[in-house]
Amino acid sequence: MAFLKKPVTGMRDILPEEKAIRERVKNIIRETYLSYGFSEIETPIAEHLENLSSSKGGENEKLIFKILKRGDKLKRAMEGLPQIGKTPEDDNDFKDADFLCEEGLRYDLTVPLCRYYAANYSVLPTPFKAIQIGPVFRADRPQKGRFRQFTQCDIDILGDETTLAEKELILATTDALDKIGFSRYSFYIAINDRRLLLELIKYAGFKMEHSPEILIILDKLDKIGKDGVLAEFEKKGFYSEYVNRIVSLFDNYEKSPNGVRDFSARINTHEAILAGESIAEIMEFVSSISKGNIHIEFDPTLVRGMGYYTGTIFEIKTDSFGSSVGGGGRYDKMVGGFTGKDVPAVGFSIGFERIMDLIMQEETHSENIVTTKEKSVWLIEKDMPKDKLDRIVEDAWIERAGGKEVLTVWMAKNKKFQMEKLKSNGFVDMQSFYTEELKK
Amino acid sequence: MAFLKKPVTGMRDILPEEKAIRERVKNIIRETYLSYGFSEIETPIAEHLENLSSSKGGENEKLIFKILKRGDKLKRAMEGLPQIGKTPEDDNDFKDADFLCEEGLRYDLTVPLCRYYAANYSVLPTPFKAIQIGPVFRADRPQKGRFRQFTQCDIDILGDETTLAEKELILATTDALDKIGFSRYSFYIAINDRRLLLELIKYAGFKMEHSPEILIILDKLDKIGKDGVLAEFEKKGFYSEYVNRIVSLFDNYEKSPNGVRDFSARINTHEAILAGESIAEIMEFVSSISKGNIHIEFDPTLVRGMGYYTGTIFEIKTDSFGSSVGGGGRYDKMVGGFTGKDVPAVGFSIGFERIMDLIMQEETHSENIVTTKEKSVWLIEKDMPKDKLDRIVEDAWIERAGGKEVLTVWMAKNKKFQMEKLKSNGFVDMQSFYTEELKK
Repeated sequence: MAFLKKPVTGMRDILPEEKAIRERVKNIIRETYLSYGFSEIETPIAEHLENLSSSKGGENEKLIFKILKRGDKLKRAMEGLPQIGKTPEDDNDFKDADFLCEEGLRYDLTVPLCRYYAANYSVLPTPFKAIQIGPVFRADRPQKGRFRQFTQCDIDILGDETTLAEKELILATTDALDKIGFSRYSFYIAINDRRLLLELIKYAGFKMEHSPEILIILDKLDKIGKDGVLAEFEKKGFYSEYVNRIVSLFDNYEKSPNGVRDFSARINTHEAILAGESIAEIMEFVSSISKGNIHIEFDPTLVRGMGYYTGTIFEIKTDSFGSSVGGGGRYDKMVGGFTGKDVPAVGFSIGFERIMDLIMQEETHSENIVTTKEKSVWLIEKDMPKDKLDRIVEDAWIERAGGKEVLTVWMAKNKKFQMEKLKSNGFVDMQSFYTEELKK
Repeated sequence: MAFLKKPVTGMRDILPEEKAIRERVKNIIRETYLSYGFSEIETPIAEHLENLSSSKGGENEKLIFKILKRGDKLKRAMEGLPQIGKTPEDDNDFKDADFLCEEGLRYDLTVPLCRYYAANYSVLPTPFKAIQIGPVFRADRPQKGRFRQFTQCDIDILGDETTLAEKELILATTDALDKIGFSRYSFYIAINDRRLLLELIKYAGFKMEHSPEILIILDKLDKIGKDGVLAEFEKKGFYSEYVNRIVSLFDNYEKSPNGVRDFSARINTHEAILAGESIAEIMEFVSSISKGNIHIEFDPTLVRGMGYYTGTIFEIKTDSFGSSVGGGGRYDKMVGGFTGKDVPAVGFSIGFERIMDLIMQEETHSENIVTTKEKSVWLIEKDMPKDKLDRIVEDAWIERAGGKEVLTVWMAKNKKFQMEKLKSNGFVDMQSFYTEELKK
């Protein structure tokens, strides 16, 4: 059987230079979140298909990597038999190929977090402030800068229904981004509220049952523009008067806290006023505490893809990158799917890979955001006598105990080429040990 | 559809307290290996089934989590059609259910490392010293202390055929174990050489084609004892004179470097003497450089499970734990499976979960090996007026900028219960903010 050298489609090998920067960036984010009193947790990368297919994951549910059943379960499934202790009706949820699988790779960290919270609730404090840093998987069409395995860095607060939760998430996330030198990209936070969006839909005249579909179209505004959105609405057969009413709301608004208040006053329902005030109050707090250093802007067109959001939604944006580099929002109904009892919840996710993209681009201009330790290399001529070699290795061992990074390697025949490779792997300080010299 | 609260079978949720210790231990191991000039890399958790099913992975190949094909590929596979551009014969490698999959979750970090090295050889230095820390997956029967997703910490040296590679792996690994406080378990390194084992088999009179089967039986010596092994040999129909000759070799040997030399002198072939001298020389070096602090013992019964080992093999053992807490060896033929050209390679893997088991057991006796930072918590009464709340949050923000870990949470109705949970999550230093007090 032939061995395949390339990674599996859409996934990637990470070279030493990038890996060192990745780990540094992850640690800075982790340390920052820990300083806010968040606790790190870990969930398995495999999750029950039932949980992943809850129709809360939006488009991501179509991108699940599914894991084949094993042993007797697989045998029964292949023969089209229901699993032991189940009737064919019980197993009806899984049709066709899905019948063969019961687990999948997680496509985000939010679904596993809610399952984790539901399972471990009794030993966790309330509110629970969680950090999760780990890989997620989406069987997306591979394209430049988008991979099928990628890392997310999430913080979530479960059990706090007040806007203090949103405020702390925004403070902690912007703090982490600042600490990895991300402020040079003059990023800002865009903020909106799902409750306000629903009021817009009602205000325009639409039936509320169409809101998921309408939100999907509105979400495309920044990609396909107003005309594109109008065309999509028309294609779907929505009544043009309603469409014009909702789209024209976006023609004219201010991004400031008072801009939100004005905007929601135009809708003028109790819910809209409440949602507007909630956004404005978060914005004012964040600007005030940071003395204007955190830029936060109201964006009534912000929708975000996931179906599970119920309140505040936000995104990190920068002009250096077309799409957002992170985002999140409130999802007060998801834990209830597991426990039967809703728990207020809000999360903020840093799009780690997009940030790494920007950092690695910089890196080629040798002005890296995150610098890594300089490493020494000791090149040893291959026929070094045993006693001398032992002495060199012992010296290196002592240097390391003193806190230095020392690589000892055999000198290659083409030493120049060897040194070039070592340099590109971060080994800067080089020292050579020649047999003759030491024999003296 | 019902949501499932428990993690998928055999995988586990990691609670905050353990997660903090895990990350600390991983970072100590990582930093130690970096100080030896090793470079960290990352490979995808999914790997081509072709690579995983190379029959180099021994028993682990039976434990692969396989990922279902998607889209048209799945459709064709379900209909029993060969994939586009393939004949039925091409696809013959994958039978029955396997026909439905092309990727699997990695069961170790060695197979992905060899693929990585083959794919990225041109940009990596020679020798290449790699660190890999990450999850691996085995669909093992779930049992106490054994999980289906678990972390391994590997170091490997590719491109060095000399014993300097083995020596550095042993130094670096024992150094890492010392730094996480593991020396309290008075661990030792057991060492042997596959070449010596093959000479034993030849010496006893067996045919060499039976050696894989014989090694599997010998590997059980520490579990089922001499009588158990003799019974297994008899069951398989091996000639009892040969069996007695090989087993009686283990009755009497010294664990010292000169013990190895005596042992291999009894076999007295060129290969046996070479292998014995290689083991003795590694042992002498390691004892000498560490001034006897690293305990290393010759164990001619050490076999290790993997089929891919070609030379030195070693294991970390401690009386506190029945099985080994890590191990590795030389596998000079595996990279060649990818590139057609063999590259000498040797690796050492720390069984991270077993070490965590021991650490977490200690932990309950409140004498944890790895201590984590003490964290503060500020409990805020729920009806705190907005201006006072903002001031508290701002104060916490300033404390964090000064390097402290401060959690701000709403005070629960049952404050005593809340405080207990917080304490068990590592929050020790508590401060309460009452509405009335601040109103003064």
